[in-house]
Amino acid sequence: MAIRVFGFPSSTCTSRVLFVLEELGVEYELIPVNFAAGEHKQHPYLERNPFGQIPAFQDGDLALFESRAITRYLVRKYGKDSGLLKKTTPEAAAAVDQWMEVETAQFDPAISTIVFQILVVPFFLGGTTDEKVVEAQLAKLGKVLDVYEARLSKSKYLAGESYTLADLHHIPCIHYFLTATPHASVFDSLPHVKAWWEAISSRPAIAKITAGMSLK
Amino acid sequence: MAIRVFGFPSSTCTSRVLFVLEELGVEYELIPVNFAAGEHKQHPYLERNPFGQIPAFQDGDLALFESRAITRYLVRKYGKDSGLLKKTTPEAAAAVDQWMEVETAQFDPAISTIVFQILVVPFFLGGTTDEKVVEAQLAKLGKVLDVYEARLSKSKYLAGESYTLADLHHIPCIHYFLTATPHASVFDSLPHVKAWWEAISSRPAIAKITAGMSLK
Repeated sequence: MAIRVFGFPSSTCTSRVLFVLEELGVEYELIPVNFAAGEHKQHPYLERNPFGQIPAFQDGDLALFESRAITRYLVRKYGKDSGLLKKTTPEAAAAVDQWMEVETAQFDPAISTIVFQILVVPFFLGGTTDEKVVEAQLAKLGKVLDVYEARLSKSKYLAGESYTLADLHHIPCIHYFLTATPHASVFDSLPHVKAWWEAISSRPAIAKITAGMSLK
Repeated sequence: MAIRVFGFPSSTCTSRVLFVLEELGVEYELIPVNFAAGEHKQHPYLERNPFGQIPAFQDGDLALFESRAITRYLVRKYGKDSGLLKKTTPEAAAAVDQWMEVETAQFDPAISTIVFQILVVPFFLGGTTDEKVVEAQLAKLGKVLDVYEARLSKSKYLAGESYTLADLHHIPCIHYFLTATPHASVFDSLPHVKAWWEAISSRPAIAKITAGMSLK
């Protein structure tokens, strides 16, 4: 049975998984979850992801949730030679792990809150964007991106000279930030970040999925 | 040269690294960072961790930050046979990755905010605990722990029948939550979570470090 991903492409965490499947050329089936109807907060979906979040994943007998664990699994299982986790030495793998942790701990809390406030709150939840929250998170994101600019002035990708999961994990939120918020100009003063974004977002596997990603 | 950890044992992220060093029996030197004087927000510390957070890490030529990346590195480099990352199959490793992601994405945001509000704000920052924030995060933590209770009723540890980094990563914040906040009774209605905590916190490598962990 093919790999099954339960979610929808415009979900940032679903797309993170789809990017890896496309990068590795692994066949999969995308099974839609009705977000508007709250299907992800009810049984039987809760048996797939007890936190009621999207996506969930199934490969044969293996059921998983948490997008960043699913991407690691896919690389271990189907992408040993892909270089996406740089498993050749503990030191090379550590660079990937470190920048994956930075994405989760420093980058995502700021940018995902901005995307949520500007796109999800008005278009999915019928609410009003809290501009004070956006402003505070933009300041945090700016500081994080300054560190990225310094890093990317020394290496083409976050974990060194080759593209890895550490880069890929950033793509969903940057896609929305640049294409659907009024703050894309934040990237203009960061030439190395901008060049990095152009390199990673133009990959065929990525562009194939982002073409279908919209929150409006 | 021995491994060097820059931080202090009462920092939750420093202790996460020290736990693994002790579990693996690897020699290290702990180099104190003067938190009160803001040493971590200034050069030269910022060259070790550009986000100005504790800890930083050095092993020979390899410099790292982000505690959860350092723990993975230590297991890869010095603990291949420890079982702490269950690297025998992609499926076994995925269970560890999944529960490590749960710790980061679901568990830590709630419990670390509670610990910060009750211990760090009054005792380190001279401020007043925001009880509304504590209450909201206690509600979130309760929901997360319900999922843990269900999980731990089926397996002794989060990723299966053996102790892994997924368990270990939880220890610092639970230590403070149970020993130094007025909310320890939250665990009383969760017998499997409580048994799990007793199993992981009583390990000699862990108890050796937690004995020196205090935020008051």
